[in-house]
Amino acid sequence: MRVIDGGITAPAGFMAAGRHIGIKKVKKDIALITSDVPADAVGVYTTNIVKAAHILWDEKLTKSGQKVKGLVAISGNANACTGAQGIRDNELMAETFAQCIGVQKEEILTAATGIIGLDMPMDIIVPGIKETASELSGKRESAKNAAGGIITTDKFIKEMAVELNICGKQVHIGGMAKGSGMIHPNMATVLSFITTDINISRELLHKALVDSVKDTYNMISVDGATSTNDMAIIIANGMAGNEKITEENEFYEEFAKAIHFINEKFAMDVVHDGEGAGKFFEVQITGAKSDEDARMLAKSIVTNSLVKTAMYGEDANWGRIVAAMGGSGSYFDQTKIDMVFESEGGSISLMEDGEPVRFDENIAAAVLGESDIIVKIKLGDGTGQAKSWGCDLSHEYVRINGEYRSRT
Amino acid sequence: MRVIDGGITAPAGFMAAGRHIGIKKVKKDIALITSDVPADAVGVYTTNIVKAAHILWDEKLTKSGQKVKGLVAISGNANACTGAQGIRDNELMAETFAQCIGVQKEEILTAATGIIGLDMPMDIIVPGIKETASELSGKRESAKNAAGGIITTDKFIKEMAVELNICGKQVHIGGMAKGSGMIHPNMATVLSFITTDINISRELLHKALVDSVKDTYNMISVDGATSTNDMAIIIANGMAGNEKITEENEFYEEFAKAIHFINEKFAMDVVHDGEGAGKFFEVQITGAKSDEDARMLAKSIVTNSLVKTAMYGEDANWGRIVAAMGGSGSYFDQTKIDMVFESEGGSISLMEDGEPVRFDENIAAAVLGESDIIVKIKLGDGTGQAKSWGCDLSHEYVRINGEYRSRT
Repeated sequence: MRVIDGGITAPAGFMAAGRHIGIKKVKKDIALITSDVPADAVGVYTTNIVKAAHILWDEKLTKSGQKVKGLVAISGNANACTGAQGIRDNELMAETFAQCIGVQKEEILTAATGIIGLDMPMDIIVPGIKETASELSGKRESAKNAAGGIITTDKFIKEMAVELNICGKQVHIGGMAKGSGMIHPNMATVLSFITTDINISRELLHKALVDSVKDTYNMISVDGATSTNDMAIIIANGMAGNEKITEENEFYEEFAKAIHFINEKFAMDVVHDGEGAGKFFEVQITGAKSDEDARMLAKSIVTNSLVKTAMYGEDANWGRIVAAMGGSGSYFDQTKIDMVFESEGGSISLMEDGEPVRFDENIAAAVLGESDIIVKIKLGDGTGQAKSWGCDLSHEYVRINGEYRSRT
Repeated sequence: MRVIDGGITAPAGFMAAGRHIGIKKVKKDIALITSDVPADAVGVYTTNIVKAAHILWDEKLTKSGQKVKGLVAISGNANACTGAQGIRDNELMAETFAQCIGVQKEEILTAATGIIGLDMPMDIIVPGIKETASELSGKRESAKNAAGGIITTDKFIKEMAVELNICGKQVHIGGMAKGSGMIHPNMATVLSFITTDINISRELLHKALVDSVKDTYNMISVDGATSTNDMAIIIANGMAGNEKITEENEFYEEFAKAIHFINEKFAMDVVHDGEGAGKFFEVQITGAKSDEDARMLAKSIVTNSLVKTAMYGEDANWGRIVAAMGGSGSYFDQTKIDMVFESEGGSISLMEDGEPVRFDENIAAAVLGESDIIVKIKLGDGTGQAKSWGCDLSHEYVRINGEYRSRT
């Protein structure tokens, strides 16, 4: 696997476009993707039972096995809690784009991110889709424009591309994602889109996505709130021409590893770009009873408000970490915890065999003064392991999310 | 039932004391309670698997059916994550107080609240217990001193007393609790102690407590973090002389109602006095599939960071409330939600039959400008109902909890 310059247009047969159509005041607010040939699409969607209109549409479409030709995503409006009208508006989005490229609306995936409960400005969106569709191209720049069209006020666009050699054929994977840097509240949504020209069975494509999301997007937290709009999608058009992958062989493993690499990078980018985040911390759990236990423990730490404020305060408050683990719902032997904090500022041991270690506050201050910190926790319960990623809970988070909805 | 002036010394046969012994810099930091006669004790304890030393001690003691003669509680140190030494220190606390009043250490309950992972200052605590024990009395003032001894930097002490007529006998219940207004991080612990002279079976005493905690303490949240030290205890000495209550008759109902009344008041006090809290909001769910579903939904709202920051920002952001409910793990029909915000500033409808209602932002601002707000949610799924109580997530919360541990 080799990282290459590029985004969602890196794989063969994909075109993209992105621009400002007027949903938001100034920034880009629409992204389009097309595949030259009918492509397989698989998705993973929010577990929130309140789902945005596009989640219902895409979930039905990808589960049916329907081939897709394109995707239209807008930012600035979540189209969630918008009732029957929202469902109709989403369908009109798909239909409008389908007409532009001469396909059926059932071949078009949709996405939206923004404020919940606002009517969709279809008088802007319908002409906007048509206008943007005229700019579709396979150029590098078009991928960048599309990546810009899905972010809200993320501080940076999130895109990447990799190249694999699958049995003598060059295979490409490109991706773009958005996180949760925002001015408008309720935009804290992860959207992730990956395109690839690999030739692979739908089942394995789905497996690669699901396995990866579990250890990447599902292991990050900005504020513990599950969005109504989260989704991660892969669209695969087979145009690399490799012999079709239909079993979990070495080629599948290589592809799955590449998908994981991209999703992990995007997941970390989303946390780095979290609302008001100034500190980024990675939690590494080893020695848990099972991987599932390790995941529960790791996630309980990055979602805990007291841990997050301690990170903000650069406070080596290991007691809050142990308390967060204790409240996670997962079991561990508290007499066998080793805990170390690491960063470019150094390394410091806080617990050994479940007992507090007296530590030098100056070293602790140096370790926690950095913006990227690793919390390593070794348990004595088994071989389960997991990583999670979180950010601090800052004044800036409160400011951003306490701002009046209609003022923004 | 009649509310009377008083605290834990209101019931017959209970004495108390509280003072400053030097664990904290200036404020009271110890509370003692005794019963003249051996009393039944029942408790409900934190579900955090990391438990403070006193939780292990009290849980074993109250589950065994052992009668108790007293309780010693200190504030300023949590005695949690303190290993084997913490267990020994806790036992020494019980033993020291037991010697003071001439009983066995197994007749003494213990409690602690404060910073996690610090060694207990036993050189201060042991003489402090002896000194404080000499001040034990049944006076009104002694109850107040004890209530002061368990709080950390709560802004006000939390105590109350009620009087019941049980089959011709005057029965009393007194209580004290602490919440989470603090300077020291990691003190966000609920401790609740109720004394009563009622004559009742241990089983029914326990049932009254458990049933009540479920709808009171378990329905509040300041920051979603489960403490290692939480506990609620009732000590009943039977000295009111009423005919023993051994079944769920009208007298039991009256007693249970009084316990619920006290716990609900304390629970609301704890939220009002939450760290950095400027807004207090009550969520009322009706029409849920079951009471358990209603509880899950109500609690998911008061623990959601985005809802809490919206309250701080006085933002009628109903979309965040629906998203929080959707992520709660409980089912509801989102096409049948009615939502109303109420306060002394007025009332405003935000959703009817699952559809957003256009509302007047000026009225919304007036409703949310108040410090106490009620969120009423009517579902169409059944007859389940629940209430929960929460506070806003403010800059003050971040300041308090972001402060450096060793600086405080």
